Amino acid sequence: MTKSTLIRNIGTLVTNDPTLGEGPLGVIEGAALVLDGDRVAWAGPGADAPATDEAHDAEGRAVLPGFVDSHSHLVFAGDRTREFAARMSGRPYTAGGIRSTVAATRAASDAELGANLARYLHEALRQGTTTQETKSGYGLTPEQEARALRIAGEHTDEVTYLGAHIVAPEFADDPAGYVAQVTGPMLDACAPHARWVDVFCEQGAFDGDQARAILTAGRAKGLTPRIHANQLSYGPGVQLGVELGAASADHCTHLTDADVDALAQGDTVATLLPGCEFSTRAVYPDARRLLDAGATVALSTDCNPGSSFTSSMPFCIAVAVREMGMTPDEAVWGATAGGARALRREDVGRLSPGAYADLLLLDAPSHVHLAYRPGVPLTAAVWRRGVREV
Amino acid sequence: MTKSTLIRNIGTLVTNDPTLGEGPLGVIEGAALVLDGDRVAWAGPGADAPATDEAHDAEGRAVLPGFVDSHSHLVFAGDRTREFAARMSGRPYTAGGIRSTVAATRAASDAELGANLARYLHEALRQGTTTQETKSGYGLTPEQEARALRIAGEHTDEVTYLGAHIVAPEFADDPAGYVAQVTGPMLDACAPHARWVDVFCEQGAFDGDQARAILTAGRAKGLTPRIHANQLSYGPGVQLGVELGAASADHCTHLTDADVDALAQGDTVATLLPGCEFSTRAVYPDARRLLDAGATVALSTDCNPGSSFTSSMPFCIAVAVREMGMTPDEAVWGATAGGARALRREDVGRLSPGAYADLLLLDAPSHVHLAYRPGVPLTAAVWRRGVREV
Ligand SMILES: [Zn+2]
Ligand SMILES: [Zn+2]
Repeated sequence: MTKSTLIRNIGTLVTNDPTLGEGPLGVIEGAALVLDGDRVAWAGPGADAPATDEAHDAEGRAVLPGFVDSHSHLVFAGDRTREFAARMSGRPYTAGGIRSTVAATRAASDAELGANLARYLHEALRQGTTTQETKSGYGLTPEQEARALRIAGEHTDEVTYLGAHIVAPEFADDPAGYVAQVTGPMLDACAPHARWVDVFCEQGAFDGDQARAILTAGRAKGLTPRIHANQLSYGPGVQLGVELGAASADHCTHLTDADVDALAQGDTVATLLPGCEFSTRAVYPDARRLLDAGATVALSTDCNPGSSFTSSMPFCIAVAVREMGMTPDEAVWGATAGGARALRREDVGRLSPGAYADLLLLDAPSHVHLAYRPGVPLTAAVWRRGVREV
Repeated sequence: MTKSTLIRNIGTLVTNDPTLGEGPLGVIEGAALVLDGDRVAWAGPGADAPATDEAHDAEGRAVLPGFVDSHSHLVFAGDRTREFAARMSGRPYTAGGIRSTVAATRAASDAELGANLARYLHEALRQGTTTQETKSGYGLTPEQEARALRIAGEHTDEVTYLGAHIVAPEFADDPAGYVAQVTGPMLDACAPHARWVDVFCEQGAFDGDQARAILTAGRAKGLTPRIHANQLSYGPGVQLGVELGAASADHCTHLTDADVDALAQGDTVATLLPGCEFSTRAVYPDARRLLDAGATVALSTDCNPGSSFTSSMPFCIAVAVREMGMTPDEAVWGATAGGARALRREDVGRLSPGAYADLLLLDAPSHVHLAYRPGVPLTAAVWRRGVREV
């Protein structure tokens, strides 16, 4: 016997189920929602709500699915405040970059890395994120990458092996040797701890052939591909991702028409990461172009200490609306249902019967306020798996 | 006998007093701060801290002066979600604008307006704002404007008479008659309840001659001028403000070289409101140009339900750094000491002996994180007048 909870007097309920309400977001005004154990049991107009064991009054506020943040790099130590301040002050900064995070991460204890990760996950939860993917990629040895994934797996189910983040410093003069490592002993050590395999396909990181080798090897070990693609320049990443059946191609900033077509035709989600362009003063990806072509667009934070140190999905929604041509509805969908698609999950990112009871009660009457009130912390409450966490 | 409190183990303390620490922000690393009653009694290196009645451990986190938000419009009812969503979706939206807020505000009870205002002030306080200016301007009759100011005065000392927000609908065909109202009976009704007089000097609102008449009349009744200037187009506002001794010229988006010179030479602060450009997809003001010319630059939210519905000073800092050429230090200064200058206050915006004990403890080791971690709620604690409020 599980306990059922009624959330009544909801101003605007976003279900992301078009069969339950208005438009692609399946919006119901004046709604109620019933949770049973860790699942959604019912969603509909308040007047039709069934009887339950207990009730929570939403007082006219909005409820939406918890955010699904499908791209982050949270197993790390240290931060890069000085590098950020130098970049934003137009001062040169030579030391470090990703390598400084690699050094700090390698030197940190398991307990430190776990505590850091837990802290950022909780920070994200307080902002409404109930599903968080996270990656390795600051270890770059078989032992260190496997350790990062093991620690990640203690906190989330969505764990991605990103040994191919950059070429490890030890292999600076032998990138082919590093790819052999990533597709060989490192993969063997990591595959049992991950669901996904990822690669940073970019000039200066891994080229198309290397990326293909890495994703193919990961797939042979049971991992599903995802790819960092076309972030800093045009390149083969997006089309490679679609060809290899990647769940998502992430960044998608520099796209040819053929790239857009590939995303529109294929099953690969285009995951856009506006926090990254915000924090590096880079040009934003064109979500409108992708949406108009028929691609599926997700939003994610890319939370990491170098290029995008935000854990805030509401911030990403606001920037996507301001800068990327998304409507508030499209951005909210991308941050919830879109993220779920990018993780090939049917059980999150929607609030219809059978889905996990992962939801965010906003301190606002409508989900539009996530874009309308940028920067304002609007979390009134968060339930995850039916348990009130915030 | 007041109670003294030591805040010890501060990672980075921003005093905004260059005699106490490094640079214009007067930064002290490894600092301590002593509060005595409602004031700061001492700030310096942790090792030198005097004995106190009680202590609070900052655990290596950053402390800075509470934000001074010198420009908002918080006495209103209703919101304008549909208008925002239409604008951001490229759909036409004809109904309403400011007039819809005027209608909702006039129809609201005193209690409703007071509750709304208290709610937004508390929301701002949770984000670190300890001094908040706010304006009338949605009443537009002598009774309604005086009522708005009276309600504002129950919550803050920084109250601005903005009868000249737009021409009241009743005077649509007689703008001169409305200016006579604003400078006559409305001013008489309002002056006792305000510290400042303001005018929206812009095409379609009030021209240079009207603005001069309004600010001069207000000054004659003991109010100090401030001005909405050069927001949507070039115009006379900035130079008029400097000429009339306005404490601040706000927006400053479209400036000639002569406007920049006037701000650099005069005592009028240039207050920039990036939330407004963010939420209207408008071009941002060029803070760098103003700073390089020697002008004093403040940051503020412009919080209002039409063009900038954010109460978040951290968000304004992050956008100012991303978009307006400010360094993180300059943006933090502008949101604290800059706001204090814009309100001609010596007792806030700094953490040196004698100032009010208004301060923000960040959940981060440095004030730079306000820009480095955009959208993330970083408030760990807030003291106002020596009392812990958050
Ligand atoms: Zn990434
Ligand atoms: Zn204003």
